Amino acid sequence: PHVAFSLPRHTEEAALKRSKDFYNLMNQRRSVRFISPEPVPRKVIDNVIRTAGTAPSGAHTEPWTFVVVSDTEMKHQVRLLVEEEEEMNYRQRMGDKWVQDLAKIRTNWVKEYLDVAPYLILIFKQTYGTLPNGKKKTHYYNEISVSISCGILLAALQNVGLVTVTSTPLNCGPRLRLLLKRPANEKLLLLLPVGYPASDATVPDLKRKPLEEIMVHV
Amino acid sequence: PHVAFSLPRHTEEAALKRSKDFYNLMNQRRSVRFISPEPVPRKVIDNVIRTAGTAPSGAHTEPWTFVVVSDTEMKHQVRLLVEEEEEMNYRQRMGDKWVQDLAKIRTNWVKEYLDVAPYLILIFKQTYGTLPNGKKKTHYYNEISVSISCGILLAALQNVGLVTVTSTPLNCGPRLRLLLKRPANEKLLLLLPVGYPASDATVPDLKRKPLEEIMVHV
Ligand SMILES: Cc1cc2nc3c(=O)[nH]c(=O)nc-3n(C[C@H](O)[C@H](O)[C@H](O)COP(=O)(O)O)c2cc1C
Ligand SMILES: Cc1cc2nc3c(=O)[nH]c(=O)nc-3n(C[C@H](O)[C@H](O)[C@H](O)COP(=O)(O)O)c2cc1C
Repeated sequence: PHVAFSLPRHTEEAALKRSKDFYNLMNQRRSVRFISPEPVPRKVIDNVIRTAGTAPSGAHTEPWTFVVVSDTEMKHQVRLLVEEEEEMNYRQRMGDKWVQDLAKIRTNWVKEYLDVAPYLILIFKQTYGTLPNGKKKTHYYNEISVSISCGILLAALQNVGLVTVTSTPLNCGPRLRLLLKRPANEKLLLLLPVGYPASDATVPDLKRKPLEEIMVHV
Repeated sequence: PHVAFSLPRHTEEAALKRSKDFYNLMNQRRSVRFISPEPVPRKVIDNVIRTAGTAPSGAHTEPWTFVVVSDTEMKHQVRLLVEEEEEMNYRQRMGDKWVQDLAKIRTNWVKEYLDVAPYLILIFKQTYGTLPNGKKKTHYYNEISVSISCGILLAALQNVGLVTVTSTPLNCGPRLRLLLKRPANEKLLLLLPVGYPASDATVPDLKRKPLEEIMVHV
């Protein structure tokens, strides 16, 4: 069954102001690799994940699982595992060019934030689901859907003054899946440490492309 | 060079309220396939695209191009092309199972909204870039980055009362790229018709998974 749909309507002036304010809010977002150990209310995290769950998904499959880790020992296990793999990535697997490309961001395989951040959010994509009759249910476009949902999650975090770094721990997926006891249909897509920025946090002095470089009007 | 980073700090109470309000706003988002022809201020669209451009991206490659189509004739060309391919998708390419999965959403290959919506936003991922010396520059994780950027775009649209349907026009990418004269390194990822919802818009009566089904706490 279909149902009527409407949204609150803003005046042109109000819409313009809202669009600017939201841009200013989001434009303050940066990937932050220095996270404060200060606690963050669990209910805020719950609401942020709820918000991510409002994302669209191919054929409404909602193919995402957000694993929220706050247990100190489990965070440390995640850190050990990620650092072990990342050291091999940087030293052997990525190739000189990639390592050079990352030099200006100054990332390496030491990830202190994995111990320090009050929460780690591991985002898994469900590559398929299970039908009531036990058969596999295809999840069309699951990676795109889950990435869109991550975009909405980032907006929700920024809206409450929390920071993260969107990271893709290369080659860590299978071991992290086992560590966190996730089923075989789930594959790790992204790992986000979440918290307030450390008081002495710094970020690379990057610029963003201006509108003319990202938009073409026809 | 690195620079200091901080964000405005909210009280716990304020953060909780902001997280709830943003959830309520985003939870009202639906994919809307009935779009009003009413005009939308161009500056609002500009700001929404600017907001999408604040997304994180692998190694800061910003691998996105947003093609905004408002020209009536070009919108119609896009419609003809998409409907031609989509009819073949539904009739021949998708397989009975997929078509069945979509039955409850009642989508088919007729896409009136492509003529009617004041704007079509075609989101291209740049699969590689070009270095100053003319060589190819790899864009790591370009599809994930562009999808995250689309999530932020959806949040920005919802924030100003605009609607869209996140669509992936299967097999239309190469022809749409040529129609819109985009370079060979750009691949179509998503097509979003944008406008106010039609006054008689309806949406499928879908429910979203509750928090317990999408979040696991460790
Ligand atoms: C990656 C992706 C691809 C989609 N492709 C289409 C599409 O081609 N046509 C369409 O009508 N809807 C498409 N949708 C919209 C979904 O059907 C919709 O998000 C889902 O049914 C949930 O409804 P909601 O967005 O209203 O919450 C797509 C959504 C996503 C995220
Ligand atoms: C798909 C994706 C993968 C990323 N992977 C990593 C990563 O593994 N480690 C890291 O430190 N940053 C990672 N980043 C963050 C980018 O380096 C960062 O977004 C980019 O430098 C732009 O900076 P900004 O987010 O502060 O605007 C990733 C971002 C995206 C979108």
